[in-house]
Amino acid sequence: MFKKVHVFRIKPGQELLEGIARYCSKHSISSAVVIGIIGSVESARLSFLMELPGKYDSVDYHGPLEIACAQGSVALKDDNPIIHIHVQLSGQDICRGGHLAKAIVFSTAEVTLAELDYQLQRQFDSYTGLNELLD
Amino acid sequence: MFKKVHVFRIKPGQELLEGIARYCSKHSISSAVVIGIIGSVESARLSFLMELPGKYDSVDYHGPLEIACAQGSVALKDDNPIIHIHVQLSGQDICRGGHLAKAIVFSTAEVTLAELDYQLQRQFDSYTGLNELLD
Amino acid sequence: MFKKVHVFRIKPGQELLEGIARYCSKHSISSAVVIGIIGSVESARLSFLMELPGKYDSVDYHGPLEIACAQGSVALKDDNPIIHIHVQLSGQDICRGGHLAKAIVFSTAEVTLAELDYQLQRQFDSYTGLNELLD
Repeated sequence: MFKKVHVFRIKPGQELLEGIARYCSKHSISSAVVIGIIGSVESARLSFLMELPGKYDSVDYHGPLEIACAQGSVALKDDNPIIHIHVQLSGQDICRGGHLAKAIVFSTAEVTLAELDYQLQRQFDSYTGLNELLD
Repeated sequence: MFKKVHVFRIKPGQELLEGIARYCSKHSISSAVVIGIIGSVESARLSFLMELPGKYDSVDYHGPLEIACAQGSVALKDDNPIIHIHVQLSGQDICRGGHLAKAIVFSTAEVTLAELDYQLQRQFDSYTGLNELLD
Repeated sequence: MFKKVHVFRIKPGQELLEGIARYCSKHSISSAVVIGIIGSVESARLSFLMELPGKYDSVDYHGPLEIACAQGSVALKDDNPIIHIHVQLSGQDICRGGHLAKAIVFSTAEVTLAELDYQLQRQFDSYTGLNELLD
């Protein structure tokens, strides 16, 4: 179950994943669901899985762009936290979503993170070439 | 933590934000996370933050369009509730997301709203020109 | 309220809705909120509501495409489970979202499903021509 729900803001100019990682570190969070993120970014890099195992293309987008939504999780692989987030971005003229590689916050990023009372874990999967969630 | 989860429907022809505001008022909800909204709209106005502080462009979309997803929160600024929602809309030929300014429901909007056991609050931020979440 | 949160993975080559239905059946879940799904698909069919009552167009997309996000619910109509999910997909060149009719998982689909402690129900609505959520 969820044991605590955190709603917090990442501020302008901060890198979004780093901001979330810092929050998790400060609050000792190693197992959580990213329920949502809304706000805006001044730029972002999204990754798109093209082939298996694990071949990604990355594309840089320059905004400002709205963060329409985001979802993901915080899990451990061995003892290292992995924050895995997909995000949907949009402006008036373009709309793209994908694996969040990095993003610089424009006005704000309002993050809802729900801590779990059990440990999510990842393990390398040779078929996908990625660190996949363990059941 | 979440203290209660509400799953409810906004019906055809209703304005989505007004429908959610009415539900919150009826159930005395002033602090909540919008976990999701799916359904369809016959029209919508989305806003896109263009410059800081607080300069938005708004664009009207005419559907029907699917509500692919939505996220946000209900918080108080002073004693006034602020419902802040970003939404992702899509048809076969266009796909856009952004700050939900208004939307008229087409078939349905299925809303999941999770009430918090602490009060979310907003405060005016002179840098962004917007009412930002307080930590 | 939520009574249990399930985070699980649907594996490559599996049909996403079938995978979720199988998980729900195995764990006796008949009332839940789909909080999120991220991952990638090799192909998907999305439906778009065009007219009321209940006239949909369906479009097939060939990927790989990222699952940027997804939301929905598990409910009962009479005694039959209905899994209703909207999904947002994106590649580098196209981005579309809508009602998930089917999708074949490419690398993974990481699903967060929160079971409810009360029963969500659907009923046929003659105005929309669809099985709508009951309040």
